[in-house]
Amino acid sequence: MDFSLSAKARDYRDRVHRFVQQRAIPYETQYRDEIKDLCPREQWQQWQMPKGINTLKAAAREQGLWNLFLPDAELGAGLSHVEYASVAEAMGQSLIAAELFNCNAPDTGNMEVLWKYGSDEQKSRWLQPLLKGEIRSAFCMTEPDVASSDATNMQAQARIEGEQVILNGSKWWSTGIGHPDCRVLIFMGLSFPDQPRHQQHSMVLVPLDTPGVNIERMLSIHGDEDAPYGHGQVRFDKVSLPADHVILGPGRGFEIAQGRLGPGRIHHCMRCIGAAERVLKMAIERGMQRQAFGKPLMLLEGNRRTLAELRLAIDQARLLTLSTAWKLDQLGVHKALVDVSAIKVIAPRVLQQVVDFAIQIHGAAGLSDELPLTGFHLMARSLRLADGPDEVHQAMISRLELKAYR
Amino acid sequence: MDFSLSAKARDYRDRVHRFVQQRAIPYETQYRDEIKDLCPREQWQQWQMPKGINTLKAAAREQGLWNLFLPDAELGAGLSHVEYASVAEAMGQSLIAAELFNCNAPDTGNMEVLWKYGSDEQKSRWLQPLLKGEIRSAFCMTEPDVASSDATNMQAQARIEGEQVILNGSKWWSTGIGHPDCRVLIFMGLSFPDQPRHQQHSMVLVPLDTPGVNIERMLSIHGDEDAPYGHGQVRFDKVSLPADHVILGPGRGFEIAQGRLGPGRIHHCMRCIGAAERVLKMAIERGMQRQAFGKPLMLLEGNRRTLAELRLAIDQARLLTLSTAWKLDQLGVHKALVDVSAIKVIAPRVLQQVVDFAIQIHGAAGLSDELPLTGFHLMARSLRLADGPDEVHQAMISRLELKAYR
Amino acid sequence: MDFSLSAKARDYRDRVHRFVQQRAIPYETQYRDEIKDLCPREQWQQWQMPKGINTLKAAAREQGLWNLFLPDAELGAGLSHVEYASVAEAMGQSLIAAELFNCNAPDTGNMEVLWKYGSDEQKSRWLQPLLKGEIRSAFCMTEPDVASSDATNMQAQARIEGEQVILNGSKWWSTGIGHPDCRVLIFMGLSFPDQPRHQQHSMVLVPLDTPGVNIERMLSIHGDEDAPYGHGQVRFDKVSLPADHVILGPGRGFEIAQGRLGPGRIHHCMRCIGAAERVLKMAIERGMQRQAFGKPLMLLEGNRRTLAELRLAIDQARLLTLSTAWKLDQLGVHKALVDVSAIKVIAPRVLQQVVDFAIQIHGAAGLSDELPLTGFHLMARSLRLADGPDEVHQAMISRLELKAYR
Amino acid sequence: MDFSLSAKARDYRDRVHRFVQQRAIPYETQYRDEIKDLCPREQWQQWQMPKGINTLKAAAREQGLWNLFLPDAELGAGLSHVEYASVAEAMGQSLIAAELFNCNAPDTGNMEVLWKYGSDEQKSRWLQPLLKGEIRSAFCMTEPDVASSDATNMQAQARIEGEQVILNGSKWWSTGIGHPDCRVLIFMGLSFPDQPRHQQHSMVLVPLDTPGVNIERMLSIHGDEDAPYGHGQVRFDKVSLPADHVILGPGRGFEIAQGRLGPGRIHHCMRCIGAAERVLKMAIERGMQRQAFGKPLMLLEGNRRTLAELRLAIDQARLLTLSTAWKLDQLGVHKALVDVSAIKVIAPRVLQQVVDFAIQIHGAAGLSDELPLTGFHLMARSLRLADGPDEVHQAMISRLELKAYR
Repeated sequence: MDFSLSAKARDYRDRVHRFVQQRAIPYETQYRDEIKDLCPREQWQQWQMPKGINTLKAAAREQGLWNLFLPDAELGAGLSHVEYASVAEAMGQSLIAAELFNCNAPDTGNMEVLWKYGSDEQKSRWLQPLLKGEIRSAFCMTEPDVASSDATNMQAQARIEGEQVILNGSKWWSTGIGHPDCRVLIFMGLSFPDQPRHQQHSMVLVPLDTPGVNIERMLSIHGDEDAPYGHGQVRFDKVSLPADHVILGPGRGFEIAQGRLGPGRIHHCMRCIGAAERVLKMAIERGMQRQAFGKPLMLLEGNRRTLAELRLAIDQARLLTLSTAWKLDQLGVHKALVDVSAIKVIAPRVLQQVVDFAIQIHGAAGLSDELPLTGFHLMARSLRLADGPDEVHQAMISRLELKAYR
Repeated sequence: MDFSLSAKARDYRDRVHRFVQQRAIPYETQYRDEIKDLCPREQWQQWQMPKGINTLKAAAREQGLWNLFLPDAELGAGLSHVEYASVAEAMGQSLIAAELFNCNAPDTGNMEVLWKYGSDEQKSRWLQPLLKGEIRSAFCMTEPDVASSDATNMQAQARIEGEQVILNGSKWWSTGIGHPDCRVLIFMGLSFPDQPRHQQHSMVLVPLDTPGVNIERMLSIHGDEDAPYGHGQVRFDKVSLPADHVILGPGRGFEIAQGRLGPGRIHHCMRCIGAAERVLKMAIERGMQRQAFGKPLMLLEGNRRTLAELRLAIDQARLLTLSTAWKLDQLGVHKALVDVSAIKVIAPRVLQQVVDFAIQIHGAAGLSDELPLTGFHLMARSLRLADGPDEVHQAMISRLELKAYR
Repeated sequence: MDFSLSAKARDYRDRVHRFVQQRAIPYETQYRDEIKDLCPREQWQQWQMPKGINTLKAAAREQGLWNLFLPDAELGAGLSHVEYASVAEAMGQSLIAAELFNCNAPDTGNMEVLWKYGSDEQKSRWLQPLLKGEIRSAFCMTEPDVASSDATNMQAQARIEGEQVILNGSKWWSTGIGHPDCRVLIFMGLSFPDQPRHQQHSMVLVPLDTPGVNIERMLSIHGDEDAPYGHGQVRFDKVSLPADHVILGPGRGFEIAQGRLGPGRIHHCMRCIGAAERVLKMAIERGMQRQAFGKPLMLLEGNRRTLAELRLAIDQARLLTLSTAWKLDQLGVHKALVDVSAIKVIAPRVLQQVVDFAIQIHGAAGLSDELPLTGFHLMARSLRLADGPDEVHQAMISRLELKAYR
Repeated sequence: MDFSLSAKARDYRDRVHRFVQQRAIPYETQYRDEIKDLCPREQWQQWQMPKGINTLKAAAREQGLWNLFLPDAELGAGLSHVEYASVAEAMGQSLIAAELFNCNAPDTGNMEVLWKYGSDEQKSRWLQPLLKGEIRSAFCMTEPDVASSDATNMQAQARIEGEQVILNGSKWWSTGIGHPDCRVLIFMGLSFPDQPRHQQHSMVLVPLDTPGVNIERMLSIHGDEDAPYGHGQVRFDKVSLPADHVILGPGRGFEIAQGRLGPGRIHHCMRCIGAAERVLKMAIERGMQRQAFGKPLMLLEGNRRTLAELRLAIDQARLLTLSTAWKLDQLGVHKALVDVSAIKVIAPRVLQQVVDFAIQIHGAAGLSDELPLTGFHLMARSLRLADGPDEVHQAMISRLELKAYR
């Protein structure tokens, strides 16, 4: 197992790190205020992206810090998963950073899908503008009416009728669908209910302006709609598209999903590690600066022991994620599935613990909007559900463990 | 130790329970929507309380379910702390319930202070309308610029100058100060920096319209301003008031604070227990109803064991809170201080754990605004900081434990 | 719920507490050394009880501190479960104390069984000498070849053949069967495999010298045989006894088992609480006395916070146990079964945690035989298995919780 | 960071693994019984090593599986720390294995000390026979009368007087000193109390038969003296030795100690990982084989989730230990000190958790001497104290973390 980085990868990581520290983090507060002005609540159709983001994106692109997630050396940076992992950790230090490098979910996953499985026409129509950052995309999988942790519960349909594919059903938590530049979504639905379990579903590219696609609202969390991205609830009413909008072919949705999820989870998890480092640093800085009972808060009874435990947790989570990236590089997605489940459980959990500690150290300020702590909490908390809740991944881990004993 | 309830207390508890289940909980969703309409973001001066609340308050008052927290048999219900604890648990099942019975913080604490320590004039001017629910009040203690977990860090001043008391300084997280009916606040500030540690501070009644009282903004958490209550940040610029606005007398602020905090924390903690019961019930109902992998979610691997652990945690937390209430009744606030610290650590923590489980069971829906789960999370999370963070209370517990051994 | 003690119970508790502190604890070290001399390893037939124990037993009996566990006011002390709970906590502070008051398991459970369900003849033959402390007894339930956590797995047989009952099978972990005064055991075995699940088993009184009762060995833990009590492995080969040795009647074993277990678990759990208090005190005394890095160990980083958490855990476990005792008193064993499961999970777990902390504070000495810490560890560790492992009790708790929702 | 193994290292690992599985583990039970016969309690002077061990040692040596821990390619196997880590994991699967390969503590540490810091004469007199496995050695550091977690508390003296070094003081927990072949010990004592903190102590080679060396007894844990190794308590009364018995020179004891501890802790921790794998396997095998409530135990509610968590914990602990070994290889002991502290906290803790689970799954049998589970418990439990308790290592971790912020 080898986590060494090539000179190229080290260079990307260092430059991304500097960009995040010097340009992204200092812009966070202003961004938050601009969002309030530009993104009126419950009126997502009017949302605008603050100009500062576009300026930073242009700068990042100019510096070649662009599409770094894509293993393709032409279209992206050609980094291995181990290498991109370190870059992703650097991005994780700011909640607004991934966007700046065109490395934001769900676009990253969607671009990978198109890159790996898309037809030439699909690539030229959607992958190209996504890679340029001209448009954004969404991914529609989770459904409101069933326990989506079990993908076979999926009820939305992608029926093949002659030359057409007809979509019906409800989806929600479609992140990014409220973005002003969102133009396309990938829809997953049931095509062949009578086929074997993993050959029933299809993934379909759906232009957002297709008749029958009804974005009903953006869901909110504590009143926060995550503007200008949004988590949309979408109804598909007899949406009819030419069958060539199906990716890879009807019934191959699961095959694509598996290929899509491995790398994406590594990105998420490494960003969690980076986020945890930032949050821990915030806790220490605040804790060394504020005094109570005659001492800096951090030196008061018990806080240092918690600090040591969090350091242990972060370092172990990073190593586990790197080892998973390495297996993905060496053995491919299918042989690393359980490893991917493992980091999916660990990394967001560690981030959640670190944030909890940091909020205690910051006191009430830690809960306010002035600091990114509640944002990082939400990142961790929602990742413990997204792409399968912790419990499903724990079940996968124990299933593999027991396999040899049955 | 005796946790038995009198017939009167059982009756109050049962009636409050029914009222909460039959009237408060069914109104929650509508309330949430009305708040969105009536309380524009960042414009707290325009906030209005939904009429439904007033209707329910009138109904509760008519049924005699009013001011139940006050030990005074004339002005309140004359319940002991043990007895009111069960009533508070029943109220805790809905985030909007305490208000309906005029039992909401910080008014409860403020009313207790006035009832115990207020002059006749202070009582007639402020206690009377508060008891009638005609006005509301706030409490200004925490400060933005210091670690307020150590009360001796307090910098705001309440200088006695002749017949006047002059207030200067900044306060924040003054809950309820954004409420349209808020008319008065209790300010805690430094009067005699050279006196012994616990005789330096004064509590002062401050009409909200006094010149120099500047409410700068409502703080928000994930973009949620907790309308129509709000958590205000307030500047006091040379606020001058007659010295008879000081409660109990200059330099007696700590004495009052200790009397105020014990009962209030029991209320909070028992509401946490009630909240935990509600949230656990939601988790079970959802978990038995939704299917995944061929079974109800709740019966899937591991969930039942977590359920058992949460049941154990809730039951123990309830008993600890009741035993603290009993000590408060029998021995007074001062002999129960450590017990109060104990429940302050335990009860919100248990609620936070239960909410975390419930969100996992609900999936993404658990994070949305449609369900009260994130609200209950915020209740638990903020109570782990309010009135002293967990860590300060843990320190009090170990200090007492070690006292005999030094 | 009322945990008040009668004057009589307070008196018993205080006198037992003094006896334990002044006579049992100071004798512990000498006892340990005498056991080494008097109880040669793997030669349990030669084991003798140190005389000091008999002296202390005589003293306790003379002071009326005898058979306090028995609710019968004539034969025992006539204490309620709530009342005896406090006495048991006092006994729990020393591992050798329960024996001194004739309140040791499994004799207590066996005496309760005989008192509640025994025939007059059974009582006069066995209950009388047990109450006088002249003989001791054992209980044979767990079996080596099956998962005994599920009692329906039991394979040993108690076949009724005419006027005789015939016992066959293997039992182990029969505590106390190595004691030089052990004269009788209670055997649980299968009589009617075709009856409903809870009417298949019988409990049979078996004099130890009955032909066919073969005590094969004493099991040991880390090389410790728990002399002079021992945990025996016993083979029953065609042991034939008159049918009047069956308690209550054939097929009523489960009925007896349930009546036996409730009170016994309260005893165990309250002794765990007492043990936890002793161990915590030892940790604090050592931790305040030894210095490292310029401070008493207990005041070093983090230890006080752990101390606070352990105080919280002990206090909650005590309240849960008392509330269970109260339910047993008020509602009977059957309505308190889940409560009994709850304390069975909590109390030994808390003791185990406290011991773990105390060993860390004591350093290597904490692991040695000079201190009772490893003994208390073993008490906690084995109680997490005895009478059903934690996991079975957790399952009972969740089952009850879910009952209303199915 | 690169954890790849050379072909040579893989070969060693695989052969050691086979040897442990095929020869050590099958011999465990017989070994335990022979020890009972050959090692009478409290008569350590008569202890003998079972012949089977010598047979296995001869076989291992013949196969070249000998002194694998030593980085020296001539005298040992010339493996890096990363490489030996995997070998140590394989050895950790049996409590008797390390001895078979002449890789047992404290001999390994002592041999490393002699190899790195010994004079030619010291090497020829002691290192040679140790490397051949002809003699064994002990290490005397911990003291009964002070908190030895703080090494500066050490009171034993190694006074330099002319050409002699004079030793006085008491030591205990000197593991291996009861072994029949133990011939030499390394003593650490105070030479120059007035020097800077880390230049006060010396390490001295002491032949066991030197006058004034009094082995007072073997300490026992639950009555287990860990025969035939033993944990001795030793008095040094005016032990006088030529000054050339001091290693590296007077006052350089700390320098040696640091060099000694890093690699040793990696060995311990990797053996913990191996032990954890063995114990987890035992738990699964038993849990899949025994039935309760109609299912294999392992498939009952909640056990699989615990299993998943333990898998996560083991895998993370392994990666952390490997990364520490890598730093030791690349950067040397001094730059890896905090990493060594980290694994010292994590690895034994994980083993303790796994053992706790396995005992629950095994039921009472898990506590008996028939199974190695209590032995593995003791390994974990004592490692949480040996070479500094968890708390001291946590403090080192937080100290480093905070260094940059002071």
